[in-house]
Formats: sequence, structure tokens, C-alpha cells
Amino acid sequence: MSSTAPINEQFRLAARPVGMPKPSDWQRTTEPLRALQDGEITVKALYLSLDPAMRGWMNEGKSYIRPVAIGEVMRAGGVGVVVASKAPGFAVGDYVSGGIGVQRYWTGAAGDKTAGFFKIDPTLAPLTTWLNTLGMPGMTGYFGLLEVGLPKAGETVVVSGAAGAVGMVVGQVAKQKGCRVVGIAGGKDKCDFVVRELGFDACIDYKGGSVKDGLKEHCPNGVDVYFDNVGGEILDAVLTRINLKARIVICGAISQYNNTTAVKGPANYLSLLVNRARMEGIVVFDYAAKYHLGVAEMGKWIREGTFKSVEDVVEGIETFPEALLMLFEGKNFGKLVLKVADA
Amino acid sequence: MSSTAPINEQFRLAARPVGMPKPSDWQRTTEPLRALQDGEITVKALYLSLDPAMRGWMNEGKSYIRPVAIGEVMRAGGVGVVVASKAPGFAVGDYVSGGIGVQRYWTGAAGDKTAGFFKIDPTLAPLTTWLNTLGMPGMTGYFGLLEVGLPKAGETVVVSGAAGAVGMVVGQVAKQKGCRVVGIAGGKDKCDFVVRELGFDACIDYKGGSVKDGLKEHCPNGVDVYFDNVGGEILDAVLTRINLKARIVICGAISQYNNTTAVKGPANYLSLLVNRARMEGIVVFDYAAKYHLGVAEMGKWIREGTFKSVEDVVEGIETFPEALLMLFEGKNFGKLVLKVADA
Repeated sequence: MSSTAPINEQFRLAARPVGMPKPSDWQRTTEPLRALQDGEITVKALYLSLDPAMRGWMNEGKSYIRPVAIGEVMRAGGVGVVVASKAPGFAVGDYVSGGIGVQRYWTGAAGDKTAGFFKIDPTLAPLTTWLNTLGMPGMTGYFGLLEVGLPKAGETVVVSGAAGAVGMVVGQVAKQKGCRVVGIAGGKDKCDFVVRELGFDACIDYKGGSVKDGLKEHCPNGVDVYFDNVGGEILDAVLTRINLKARIVICGAISQYNNTTAVKGPANYLSLLVNRARMEGIVVFDYAAKYHLGVAEMGKWIREGTFKSVEDVVEGIETFPEALLMLFEGKNFGKLVLKVADA
Repeated sequence: MSSTAPINEQFRLAARPVGMPKPSDWQRTTEPLRALQDGEITVKALYLSLDPAMRGWMNEGKSYIRPVAIGEVMRAGGVGVVVASKAPGFAVGDYVSGGIGVQRYWTGAAGDKTAGFFKIDPTLAPLTTWLNTLGMPGMTGYFGLLEVGLPKAGETVVVSGAAGAVGMVVGQVAKQKGCRVVGIAGGKDKCDFVVRELGFDACIDYKGGSVKDGLKEHCPNGVDVYFDNVGGEILDAVLTRINLKARIVICGAISQYNNTTAVKGPANYLSLLVNRARMEGIVVFDYAAKYHLGVAEMGKWIREGTFKSVEDVVEGIETFPEALLMLFEGKNFGKLVLKVADA
């Protein structure tokens, strides 16, 4: 690090949001970078991952991961470059992926388990792809579909949030495995994209008509696997069209994350009984020991040109509060990524 | 059959109920018994099985079994005695179990697949036990728990409708398999019974206090398997206490069957995500090929005196409309059975 140490800028959680996060829920802080102790590194953020799950981390209460504390730097995954190191195995100039947080610089023990930094190879795939298909959303879609959805060739797989980071992966993995794939997304542009560019067999525009009618039309043999990223009315609509022994993967419920009233439970859940079907949750961290398998297979497909990793890049850490809202307003197209600095 | 042929009496579905079935939803008819053709039998009903599922059969719409048609004799399982036979393999005096319907006599082809008559041995267990532990409720609880709930010794199993036919079986099977068993039932008498007489470790009286508090107290290590017969608020309460990788067996939702508004979906279903847990439906017919295994194991426990089959017998076919309501009013204690005639 040069002697004219750069200033870190951070977004900290100022208040627990009620409904959609407001500007006043954030506190912007700056602080000088500190000198390293043995075993520590400083990572300069290049791209941060913006994910629907972040909304959940802002709430109090037990979940699969502890909430972000008031006053704490907002949790975020990211890719960056090591700009200072007193840790063996990490050299200045190494590219890494891990829990940088919404800030320009992360400093701490290289082996910090919560941050979980690991080196990435930018010659294998662009940096943003490591936050997308080869990162958490990719692993979520890949293992959630294959290990919980258990799709078989010839079956019909439906995925909501089809033009989002996880949805794009789910649909493309299902196609690779020989399934009929029907997406659900908001707007004609997104639907056209997943069909024309990603090879989905069809896509239902939930803003443009009835999801039930769309399912009747595009899933003439019913739904064998439903990968749910949205919850709410769409989950209920799909429940009316599932087949015997269908598998529903509960990955998220973005339609419910900013509720100020209770979550809408799936009123049609008794379709699970009628159809001896299953609804099961997935959290990506459970598959950490197998990530390399997902990276290897999807990396191969990407290099072969049969699989696309699509990122929607927003520029500037200062845009973080508004950029995050794009997820809940359905504005992003593919994986939403915040560019913090040039590589 | 004697020349002074007895008269059949029947309860037919007159109208699809809105909410709780009313007397006017039934039509009582009589007709003489007809002469048999080759391959046919006449079965005299002795005991009919009254089950929560019957409410669902009265509704229009796709389910795991076709609805009872307007004007049709109400579907019901039962045990009876063959009083006339032109079918090989069935002799007058044989005891049988099958789909008799709510009537005094069933006449038709002995091999009728829908009725599914099979001979039972009243020396192995009382006739009513063949409608309970050794019949559909028993098979539902046994296979639902073991094949969908997948309990392991030492785990905590919670079952709602604990003093109902299925719940009693689930709890006792779970105890046999070495689990901690906590029931949920309505009223102190029912709770006392399942603890003192059936050996449950505890029972939560949902009418006497908060189910959540009861779960905190009696499931200090959380809930590994929840066998749900009731749905509604109780399902939601249990969802807040499940463990990682918990299994929720959806067997029924008696709290919702007479709704005139939409079913209440489980608002806490995202606990499935947080806990990577599973919710899966069970329909007993899927296990038909294995019923003999359930009959053998539970029959053995009954003979050993370590397992109880409890029936609540109401007398007289004419009481059918009111007797059925006992299920939804929580009035029955164990398996509700309608006695139609003496053996």
C-alpha cells in the first residue's frame, strides 16, 4: 500500500428497514485504512454482488445467517484485488472473491471464515462472472436445481425470477439436463431474452397476463420441478399445476421481502398432499464442499458457448442504496453487480 | 339371501356443502336389494369408517380421488359380512373390508376395483380395528411417518390431531421407533389420554394455551418431524420451531376443510428455506402394495400389548350426518366408527 493511504468508504446499516429500504436506513462513513498485522490482507473492492437475500440480512431475528448489526458495514459478497498483504498465500495483485461488504476496502485476517476469501482466476472468466454463474447465484441455482429439484430429462422445469441471476442459471442447467424449461419473469423484454438468448422453451410474463393461463399453455404435461425465487401469488399459481411427485425448491420469496404485513403463505399448499409432492428449502452454503464441481461444469459450458452468464452492472459505490432497490422493482436484467473501481 | 329380501338404506350426496355439511346436503333413500349376477356379492355393512377426508370428497374439483357425484351414495370404507355370493372366493359369512359406502348393503362385482373388498380375520383383531390401526388410518400414519417423515431414534416427532385415528398411530409408531413424541390435541382429556394411555412424552392442549409456548417447553431440542393433520395456525406455530433438515408430513388440514374462505396458507413456510427443511404430502393409497407390512408390524405390537387401537363407536346409520360433524368439532376420541348392524 502506498504511504498516501486511500480512504475507505462504507455503507453501514443505520436502521432496520420497514418495508422497502429507505436512504435513511443507511449511514455513509469514511475512515483511513489501517496498517496490517501479520496474517492480514487488504482487498480493494472492484465489484460487489447485490442480491435479494441482502434484504433478509437487514432484519432482526433468527435466520440461516446472523443479521447485520446496526452500525455494521452492510454485508456483501464481492470480487477485488489484494492491495496489501502480510499473509502467506496472498500477494498484492491477486484477485479474490469473498465477503467484502459494501465498502471500498476490506482489511482483516486472510483466513477470516466469515469473509471466506479465495483466489479467482480472471483469465478463466471475467471478474463479474465470479459473482454470478461461478459465484453464489450460480451455485444456488446449480445445486438447488440438481440436488433438491432432482430434474430428470424430459421433465418440465418452471423457474420464477427467470431473468434474475439464479433463475438464468436454473433454466440453463435444466436445459443442459434435457428438461423442458418454462420461465416466469416480469415484462416482455425479460421473457424474450430468456427464450431467445438463453434457450428457455417458453417464458410467462406475469405482468402481461395470468400466470395460471401461461402455465396451462406452456406446461401441457404439468410441472415436475418448480424453482421458486418469488413466493406469493406466483407460487400459488404454480401449485395448481404440479404433477404427482413434483419437487418445489424454495430458494427465495422476493415478492414478500419488503412486506410490512405478514408473509403470504401458499394457500394452495394442499396441492402437495393431493400430488404427494414436496416443497423444500435450499441454502447455498450447504454445498460449499462441492462448489468446485459446479464451477467446473458450468465453466465448461460457458467456454463451449452453450451457457451464458449475464451481468447487469451499475457503476459507483455511491449508488448502492438505489441500486439495491432495482432488485425489488424488477429492474435488473441478469445478475445485479455494483462496480466500485476499475481492476 | 332369503326371499324376504331386506331393504337397503342409503345416504346420498344431495348438494355440495358450503362450509360445514348441513342435513339438507344429504338425501336418504331406500331400495330393495337386487338379485346377484355371476361374480357378484352382497355385503352387509357392520361398521363404517368416518374420516376427515370425506369432507374433501364432497367438493367438486380435481383431487387425489374423484369427487362423490350429486345423487351418488356417499363414499365410505367399512367392514361387513358377505350375505350373498355368486363370486368364487367369497362365501356367505366371510368378513370383508372395502368401500361399502354409507348404506346398509353393498352389491356388485366382488372384484370391483373401486370398492376393493378383501377378506379380514376377526379372530386376529376386532372388526373395528380393521377400520382403524389395521385399516386406512393406521396405514396412513404408519407409512406417512416412516416413509415421508423418516424419523430416526432420538429425534423429536410432533403430531397434531394426536387423539384422532391417524395421530394416535403416528405417535405410537414414533415411540416404537425410539423418538421423543409430542402430541397436539384439543382439550385436557385428549392430552391426558395420549400421554397416560398411549405413552406420548407430552401433549399440548391447543385450546388451553399457546402452541408455540407448548412447543418451546416440550420440544427443547426443536422439532425434527412434524406430522400435520390440521393445517392452519398450528402448522404455522410448528414451522417456527423446526430443526435443520426437518420433515413435515402433510396428511390433512382438518382446520381448513369447512372453510368458506380461502385456505390459510402457512405464512411461516420460509422456515423451510432457513432450515433446509421439507414439506411433503402423503396419500395412503400409494402404499397399498405394502399394507401387509404395516398390518404385520402394528398387529404384532397390538398382540404384545405395546400398542393401542382406540375406536369411538357411534350407533345407527341414521346418525350419520351428525356423527360426521363430530370429526370437525373435535368430539371424537380415537377413530370415529359408525355401527350399522350387529355382526
